[in-house]
Amino acid sequence: MMIDHPLPPGSTIGILGGGQLGRMTSVAASRLGLKTHIYNDTPDAPAFDVAAAATVGAYDDLDAIARFAEQVDVVTCEFENVPAAALEAAGRSACVFPPVKSFEVAQDRLTEKDFVSGLGIAVAPYAAVATLADLKGAILRVPPPALLKTRRFGYDGKGQASIHTLCEAESAWEIIGEAPAILEGMVAFEREVSVIAVRGQDGTMRFYDVVENVHRGGILDTSTVPANMAPRLAGEAQAIAGRIAEALGHVGVLTVEMFQTGGASPSLAVNEIAPRVHNSGHWTQDACLISQFENHVRAICGWPLGDVARHSDAVMTNLIGDDAGEWRQNAAEAGTALHLYGKAEARPGRKMGHITRISPKS
Amino acid sequence: MMIDHPLPPGSTIGILGGGQLGRMTSVAASRLGLKTHIYNDTPDAPAFDVAAAATVGAYDDLDAIARFAEQVDVVTCEFENVPAAALEAAGRSACVFPPVKSFEVAQDRLTEKDFVSGLGIAVAPYAAVATLADLKGAILRVPPPALLKTRRFGYDGKGQASIHTLCEAESAWEIIGEAPAILEGMVAFEREVSVIAVRGQDGTMRFYDVVENVHRGGILDTSTVPANMAPRLAGEAQAIAGRIAEALGHVGVLTVEMFQTGGASPSLAVNEIAPRVHNSGHWTQDACLISQFENHVRAICGWPLGDVARHSDAVMTNLIGDDAGEWRQNAAEAGTALHLYGKAEARPGRKMGHITRISPKS
Repeated sequence: MMIDHPLPPGSTIGILGGGQLGRMTSVAASRLGLKTHIYNDTPDAPAFDVAAAATVGAYDDLDAIARFAEQVDVVTCEFENVPAAALEAAGRSACVFPPVKSFEVAQDRLTEKDFVSGLGIAVAPYAAVATLADLKGAILRVPPPALLKTRRFGYDGKGQASIHTLCEAESAWEIIGEAPAILEGMVAFEREVSVIAVRGQDGTMRFYDVVENVHRGGILDTSTVPANMAPRLAGEAQAIAGRIAEALGHVGVLTVEMFQTGGASPSLAVNEIAPRVHNSGHWTQDACLISQFENHVRAICGWPLGDVARHSDAVMTNLIGDDAGEWRQNAAEAGTALHLYGKAEARPGRKMGHITRISPKS
Repeated sequence: MMIDHPLPPGSTIGILGGGQLGRMTSVAASRLGLKTHIYNDTPDAPAFDVAAAATVGAYDDLDAIARFAEQVDVVTCEFENVPAAALEAAGRSACVFPPVKSFEVAQDRLTEKDFVSGLGIAVAPYAAVATLADLKGAILRVPPPALLKTRRFGYDGKGQASIHTLCEAESAWEIIGEAPAILEGMVAFEREVSVIAVRGQDGTMRFYDVVENVHRGGILDTSTVPANMAPRLAGEAQAIAGRIAEALGHVGVLTVEMFQTGGASPSLAVNEIAPRVHNSGHWTQDACLISQFENHVRAICGWPLGDVARHSDAVMTNLIGDDAGEWRQNAAEAGTALHLYGKAEARPGRKMGHITRISPKS
């Protein structure tokens, strides 16, 4: 179902998922005079604090999701692992953006790799793993060091096991719960980068500047923009994101994570795609006039896309778990914007907020 | 009542008034992990869409205000004309910032002029008017052209009448409803400017860059930063705002509007003060890392003040009444941020939103 005309100010966006991404999307929607209605499976959702309406319900409660969709003008999601049946239930009474195809591809690491490599875009070496015997065969084709990852429902390093020798196959298979998986060759990369792209309902696309990411313990630690990368290669990274968004018929923000390899003759391989606003795009709130959140809202509502130009350089640092206890110091720092997500409990590994340090554009 | 320690993330700010200023303050609070509870006298408040809690009640319903204050950790106001009794009722169970003194001074044009000129700061010539006979006498001391303004409850050009000759005294007195008033000499100014200052609970002060304002029909039309003003004079403007904030013992954002007069030997005269975030500071959302709204929140919560540095030049234009119908075109403009306040009805003279056009810092 497509929207023919832009949703006018005063319309309501339904968001499945009430975490920090939903929260910041809701705030971005308010700037355009749009309301949000948040659907979340627990009552303590950070996004509830900044939404016009809230529904608590399970993501597999299709009746509740259908009722929710009836009350809004368009539905979007803050996370990619929303069940297909939920998207379908929502889609019966509201437009859903991004389209189902983007979720289908992004929810399954094997489908994703097949899809991206099917477009002639490089990915890390990989092999499908359905059984322990498969895994042993895969290790011969994708030699260690390699990562065994569940096909579905992995994020922030969860559902993964590293394999350095063939004899680790059984323990890795156990660690990931013997679920359908892929074995991915570990790429000796110079840097990890991501492209935050946005595609409108009319196919218009825009790309934020390429950002360089550093992970720590499987979780994003810092995002730095501009990436330390030649302009030609950065342009290639954006073109890759564009080809994927186009092939998906995507609408909204699409994030493509890539590895830069090859030393003096650099090349790019796609690591992962996310059909949504992304942690590595949070810097756009502070270093661009129009953030990834607002551009996602504009795209799904059929509005003209906003300017993606960057007015400042930026380094975004995640506040994980106890990091958020430093808020007084962070708040006092010059050139620094502090963002806290309103989560009560600072559990280890939990994303509590982020800080963005900006400096004049290089 | 002072806050000894900063209010921690998760605390709730109560805001009296749910218009666009409350709405944008609520959004700014959310960035710091703070919640808001909005109190408004009608149920259609723009700020309700982005608040964790909402109360509909009259501003003179002291019981309702007291109950509201019991549920929050600090109380602030989005408008200066909140009744003194309401501030007092709120203050019995919560800290109220800015302090009562700032409201007392800003609510009454005569008190305000006396206060500012008592600090040795220049203001336009003025005289108190309690009766028609007073007015006739005042016109002799403050010769026309002059403005007759009610002492209380005037804004955006309401409660005002211009006087060009003595014989207009009676009609002007009628226009303003024969209310206690002041007669103000019209100043032949080169430009109108304002200073957005913020003062913390510990007395720390910060000043945004001086902004140049153009009014149309008594309502702010554009704010441009930087003001076309010599750095020395801009520094003087900030110093004046600082002296007023200090003398009030103000906490939060304080806006001081001034006239620049004197041609080649320029000088400044204070026109008006507002103990709150201000329309002429909306550009800070798009051209500064930390907006006036966030700095107000930081001040009233006892947090360190945020960086007021400007990363871009900016021109803010208000969208009044039907102007907001151009939202599609505004949204499509490069270098432009569109802000809509979520008001359903575009009445003439009603502030519906604003746009900020930014450009590289000059």
